[in-house]
Amino acid sequence: MLMGIAEEMASRQRAISVSEFFEKNRHLLGYDNKAKAMLMIVKEGVDNSLDAAEEACILPDIMVAVKEEAPEKFRITVGDNGPGIVEDQIPMIFGRLLYGSKFHRLKQQRGQQGLGISCAVLYSQLTTGMPTLISSSTGDGKTNRFSLKVDVAKNRPLIIEKSTEDGRVWHGVEATFVAECAYRENKQSVLEYLRQTAISNPFAEIVFDSPAGRFEFKRGVSRMPPQPKEILPHLHGVELGVLSRMLAATDAKTMLSFLMDEFSRVGKQSAYEILTKAGITKAGPGGKPEPDARFRPQRVTDEMAARIIEAVKSVKLIRPPLECLSPLGTELIESGLRKELAPEFVASVSRPPETYRGWPFQVEAGLAFGGSVKEFGLIRFANRVPLLYQQGICAISKSVDETDWRRYGVQMNKEVKDPLVVFVHLCSVWVPFTSESKEAIANYDIIIREIKLALQECARKLSLWLSGQRKSAMLVKRKSLFERYAGETAHALSTITGSSKDDIKKKIIDLVTHKWGEISAEEVSMDEMDKMDKIDKAERHGREDEAEDPESGE
Amino acid sequence: MLMGIAEEMASRQRAISVSEFFEKNRHLLGYDNKAKAMLMIVKEGVDNSLDAAEEACILPDIMVAVKEEAPEKFRITVGDNGPGIVEDQIPMIFGRLLYGSKFHRLKQQRGQQGLGISCAVLYSQLTTGMPTLISSSTGDGKTNRFSLKVDVAKNRPLIIEKSTEDGRVWHGVEATFVAECAYRENKQSVLEYLRQTAISNPFAEIVFDSPAGRFEFKRGVSRMPPQPKEILPHLHGVELGVLSRMLAATDAKTMLSFLMDEFSRVGKQSAYEILTKAGITKAGPGGKPEPDARFRPQRVTDEMAARIIEAVKSVKLIRPPLECLSPLGTELIESGLRKELAPEFVASVSRPPETYRGWPFQVEAGLAFGGSVKEFGLIRFANRVPLLYQQGICAISKSVDETDWRRYGVQMNKEVKDPLVVFVHLCSVWVPFTSESKEAIANYDIIIREIKLALQECARKLSLWLSGQRKSAMLVKRKSLFERYAGETAHALSTITGSSKDDIKKKIIDLVTHKWGEISAEEVSMDEMDKMDKIDKAERHGREDEAEDPESGE
Repeated sequence: MLMGIAEEMASRQRAISVSEFFEKNRHLLGYDNKAKAMLMIVKEGVDNSLDAAEEACILPDIMVAVKEEAPEKFRITVGDNGPGIVEDQIPMIFGRLLYGSKFHRLKQQRGQQGLGISCAVLYSQLTTGMPTLISSSTGDGKTNRFSLKVDVAKNRPLIIEKSTEDGRVWHGVEATFVAECAYRENKQSVLEYLRQTAISNPFAEIVFDSPAGRFEFKRGVSRMPPQPKEILPHLHGVELGVLSRMLAATDAKTMLSFLMDEFSRVGKQSAYEILTKAGITKAGPGGKPEPDARFRPQRVTDEMAARIIEAVKSVKLIRPPLECLSPLGTELIESGLRKELAPEFVASVSRPPETYRGWPFQVEAGLAFGGSVKEFGLIRFANRVPLLYQQGICAISKSVDETDWRRYGVQMNKEVKDPLVVFVHLCSVWVPFTSESKEAIANYDIIIREIKLALQECARKLSLWLSGQRKSAMLVKRKSLFERYAGETAHALSTITGSSKDDIKKKIIDLVTHKWGEISAEEVSMDEMDKMDKIDKAERHGREDEAEDPESGE
Repeated sequence: MLMGIAEEMASRQRAISVSEFFEKNRHLLGYDNKAKAMLMIVKEGVDNSLDAAEEACILPDIMVAVKEEAPEKFRITVGDNGPGIVEDQIPMIFGRLLYGSKFHRLKQQRGQQGLGISCAVLYSQLTTGMPTLISSSTGDGKTNRFSLKVDVAKNRPLIIEKSTEDGRVWHGVEATFVAECAYRENKQSVLEYLRQTAISNPFAEIVFDSPAGRFEFKRGVSRMPPQPKEILPHLHGVELGVLSRMLAATDAKTMLSFLMDEFSRVGKQSAYEILTKAGITKAGPGGKPEPDARFRPQRVTDEMAARIIEAVKSVKLIRPPLECLSPLGTELIESGLRKELAPEFVASVSRPPETYRGWPFQVEAGLAFGGSVKEFGLIRFANRVPLLYQQGICAISKSVDETDWRRYGVQMNKEVKDPLVVFVHLCSVWVPFTSESKEAIANYDIIIREIKLALQECARKLSLWLSGQRKSAMLVKRKSLFERYAGETAHALSTITGSSKDDIKKKIIDLVTHKWGEISAEEVSMDEMDKMDKIDKAERHGREDEAEDPESGE
């Protein structure tokens, strides 16, 4: 009887296509509700457009159009002037989940999974039954048009229509989705996403035709940032299973060339040290074991591979090369914050790169205080992409929460929060997101540490400025006090001395003005204060800077 | 030139196997750190064992063994007495991601993705290079043994060794993993997971051979809960893309039979109504349109399908059948809480089933207060499986946070929390988890509403008990006051009346005892108090019950 049950159970076993899986679990990809669905579709399109333009060194012109065709049914178009996609790749890129060029490359890119754009196609057909329309040209005068869906059971493109048109010379991609969505203009909307994208990609020109009219985000700089370069994997981040696979697949004839050519930062000395520690040795002169540099990778057993992984832990290797990263830099962060937020004070920092699991990453932070900034805000970016959801579980929020802002004179408790916008950008060859929807960064200790250090560095700058502000305010108050009583004082002195009351009053005011400058309580120039503050602080700057850092004593 | 770039970019496009994807993103499946990795492996094994035994109506005997073989390298075995797995299915179930019998079934089960156990194999080989060993028998005297890995690039099983042994008659599955892990005994450990599993599965016997010795969780009840039954999908939860696929694949010859036979709760009248509203009609007598019941499903266009989905929204359908669910019931919840926590007071509730996205679900809650419970705690379950991580983003935590506990006399603010354990169990044919690791429930409004209602219902019971407690405490205090002054009063009365002091004192004490029962401040019987409380409360129960519910006024 049990045999019967086991066989009956076996008869129900079957493979689940990755499309079926994500169709049913679409909230994992961010399609939890209609407003978010619109954001996801636009985001996947724009991220791909920016990646492609960047790779082809083209200053990106991005066009986004959103139009309500029926209640909750929207036509969403994303177009670019990138290099375009060759004809035979279009169906696979749009019609197959887990397909793409970015998953295996160690280089900072917006996309990394090969899931995003095909899931936008999947969501569209699921909710409206409509195929996605794609036009593309690579600049050869031919425009390829596809109308396609995802064949869910097979996870393959299902081409509904296909045509080629001659004559128009252009390059780029334009994709149109018809999906069940909702249009919003709140903090988690398409508009906000594009606004923040414009901050972190000032070299892009973005036009958004929304149901509420046209929004234009003008190009702020006309030079592309340096192209990040692809790097080889670093041994400190390679796990046994991956190493075994590389050993089986390599064309290298010897372990020495395998280690030196397929990984970054492994020199001959390091390779020898790894081989020796892993016991991949041969008898040298006098029977003494020496590293067997010519050992064939294909002959490495599972056990040897495990010893290599163990050996690597104790071998000092130079950090992975960093040209794979493309940080924004402090200049761009500050100009972006000033342009978009018009604050009174701005500070920023770009930390040196670090690594987690062998993958390089880098943290940048900025603070914008006062002025048009009226309340607390946090804006998060990963590889130049704004993160609008899941703030609660993000490593960035955690770092902000764990920073002791009081030490820097900043109020950040539940009841009172200073008017401060915190900006954090994490860039990496592989951002560890908490889910496929790429909304929050996983809580790796080293990442949190770096973010906190960046925030502290900015907070120190803010703290100096704030204490200067407070001193200036005090000076202004004291001066106005003197001025207020100048009349009475002059009257009293005039009675005693017999001198003219007006003369005495003028002298008192001259004295006050001479001592505290040409300022009045009504018209305090912030630049003035800044200057006073700087002079005042300059001498004890070094000392205080150290003392104010809560981490420095640890 | 652009053509060149587009072609170069195209040359790098490739498919990503689902194994590669989850290997690199293993934190999505819960493999973030070594302690959690151990929990995940045990959990996937035990959940599968319980599902299989339940399906075969076998009282489950589960064996878990964890042994440290080398620092941070553990041998983890999970064994059961279930129906076993037939020989040719073993490699696929353990060696292929997204393979299983549960994904497409609408029925409450612990597993639902076809990802868990194969990912445990994947994590093991990734960290130690070791294959997983599986033995199974279906009771036919043959034991099949496999040693296998996942072929990551192909997402297929890679069989290292395979043998069949005759003679031993048994049934079940035993799987042994060797993986990089860490052993803990904290609140998020294997031990805690098994302890909570024993609460929600009291019909299971669980033995755990841990590095710290043997733990046994004895079977509490020797009857299996009623088997949940598989149901058909409900039209209110079917989306257009899925409907189109069903239309194309159906064997039904007419739309009437398609609607009635492939969905639950669609009667003839409802089917006619849907067809009419969707415009799938023909000319009836006198040219009046009537529903075209014999329309062929294969002839339904995308547009018609969209109209069906639209029509369904306004057609009243009976809720999906609920025998697909297997709630615990209040008796089991309360006995579980009493047994494991020894509290002073317990309350529980099992809500009527509800549906989200057309999927039935049901919420159960329990509260355990005082006694051995010394601090606040939350224990969460989904389909009888304890959830130990990601509490912060779970719909259950959110519901607890949003409940106004003060109204029920319960302290639950940041500073002071009453000694209270909150228990919540959500069961559903498809639990919407926030990630593949199945640690937290997504924040669907209807789910949060149901959890809050369940918590409020329990909180009302607790509130009554608490106010009774306070009254009893007051009575005890008053009685002891009388007793304390009985001597002095007797002395005074004796002086006035001339009667014996001792006689008067005895009479006073008799009086007090008669009025307030045989209780003393030192030995307050809880049952006594409960009784007093009940009598006291009985008359105004109805009124207060309503008034105390913060939701009732909304």
